[in-house]
Amino acid sequence: MTGTGVFLSFEGIDGSGKSTQARRLAAHLRDQGREVVLTREPGGSPGAEEIRRLVLEGDAERWSAETELLLFTAARRDHLERLIQPALDRGAVVICDRFADSTRVYQGVARADLLGLVNTLHAQVIGVDPDRTFLIDMDPEAALTRALGRQAGEDRFESFGVGLQEKLRAGFLALAERAPERFRVIDGNRSEDAVAADVIAALP
Amino acid sequence: MTGTGVFLSFEGIDGSGKSTQARRLAAHLRDQGREVVLTREPGGSPGAEEIRRLVLEGDAERWSAETELLLFTAARRDHLERLIQPALDRGAVVICDRFADSTRVYQGVARADLLGLVNTLHAQVIGVDPDRTFLIDMDPEAALTRALGRQAGEDRFESFGVGLQEKLRAGFLALAERAPERFRVIDGNRSEDAVAADVIAALP
Ligand SMILES: Nc1ncnc2c1ncn2[C@@H]1O[C@H](COP(=O)(O)OP(=O)(O)OP(=O)(O)O)[C@@H](O)[C@H]1O
Ligand SMILES: Nc1ncnc2c1ncn2[C@@H]1O[C@H](COP(=O)(O)OP(=O)(O)OP(=O)(O)O)[C@@H](O)[C@H]1O
Ligand SMILES: [Mg+2]
Ligand SMILES: [Mg+2]
Repeated sequence: MTGTGVFLSFEGIDGSGKSTQARRLAAHLRDQGREVVLTREPGGSPGAEEIRRLVLEGDAERWSAETELLLFTAARRDHLERLIQPALDRGAVVICDRFADSTRVYQGVARADLLGLVNTLHAQVIGVDPDRTFLIDMDPEAALTRALGRQAGEDRFESFGVGLQEKLRAGFLALAERAPERFRVIDGNRSEDAVAADVIAALP
Repeated sequence: MTGTGVFLSFEGIDGSGKSTQARRLAAHLRDQGREVVLTREPGGSPGAEEIRRLVLEGDAERWSAETELLLFTAARRDHLERLIQPALDRGAVVICDRFADSTRVYQGVARADLLGLVNTLHAQVIGVDPDRTFLIDMDPEAALTRALGRQAGEDRFESFGVGLQEKLRAGFLALAERAPERFRVIDGNRSEDAVAADVIAALP
């Protein structure tokens, strides 16, 4: 399925440090002489970006949740076959900043009735899961405090949607529990260096 | 599923007279006082048309067959939920010039290995079949002769892809055989009036 390369993904709530850690891991592995492809979702390939633009332009009611899910699955398929799979086939390490788990968790919160369709589409047209997924787990208020500074009050927590972020966090943790071989849960409430060391220690 | 309306589709090879007969049937039913929504695929709703433009622009290798299938399924879903289903819900007759059977038959010829995916996607996100499908069956060479006139020679038959059209014709007939309650096969090698009379006689 995933050729001879290694497929890694970072998951977690907004502001938990995924992009920071993905960049650091890419630098670390390149220093070791590995070919690294650092990419992200949504998007990640020219076709996927165009589909994303189509989905996001126009007003919010423009596409139903079902149509959007099909469009995003088309984008992921393009990303997979144009960028990820060829890189894995030539032995590279692919680091993806969010992948299918984000779809599962966000749909699980927004439209739980669509989870069956999410899983069917994944099995039928994606069919690949990362070899390892780093879940950067973090308290949502701490993530906001980090981003905005200590002076942030109640109102700003509300507008950040801490309630939603709590649900998403619980969703990620539930996924990790169901696939313990693939997931490693890493405490993101620490220094960048401490998190990065745990990520390296948790490489497959 | 289909509300209180009636969902009709026309299928058949290129030039068999689908659009002509769909227009005639729409006029006939309107004369009887029915609300008729005459539509077509691919396309049929603004969102579906935009997806179609995205698929068709750029070079031929731009999307894989799998990605294209997901994009066209998204377009069909949009067409269904924005135009077809609301019309059926208010009791209208919907006449669709090509629908899912065309996808089945064209994929069956081009990429038979994708037929399982075609059927899964249809079951999961479309879920609706017409109440009646009129298959306008016609000899491909006769269809070309009709369009180009009697002087058309061998070369023109070749460039029209008569071999491909023969395969598509066989594909449509095979589908009709497997769903005899839904399909009515109508001999298209006759005058417009004769075909139209058979269509009306075969209404559900
Ligand atoms: N361990 C850390 N300690 C303190 N600040 C951090 C740490 N990790 C990341 N940050 C900072 O927190 C902010 C969010 O980090 P980052 O962009 O990596 O998160 P993310 O998970 O990718 O967010 P998003 O989901 O919005 O893309 C950035 O300003 C980043 O510099
Ligand atoms: N019964 C008929 N006898 C003679 N000519 C016909 C008949 N029905 C249609 N035509 C003519 O044949 C041509 C093709 O008809 P039409 O466009 O309805 O076919 P179609 O199945 O919709 O084709 P396409 O698949 O390309 O959309 C048109 O020029 C039309 O006027
Ligand atoms: Mg990020
Ligand atoms: Mg036509």
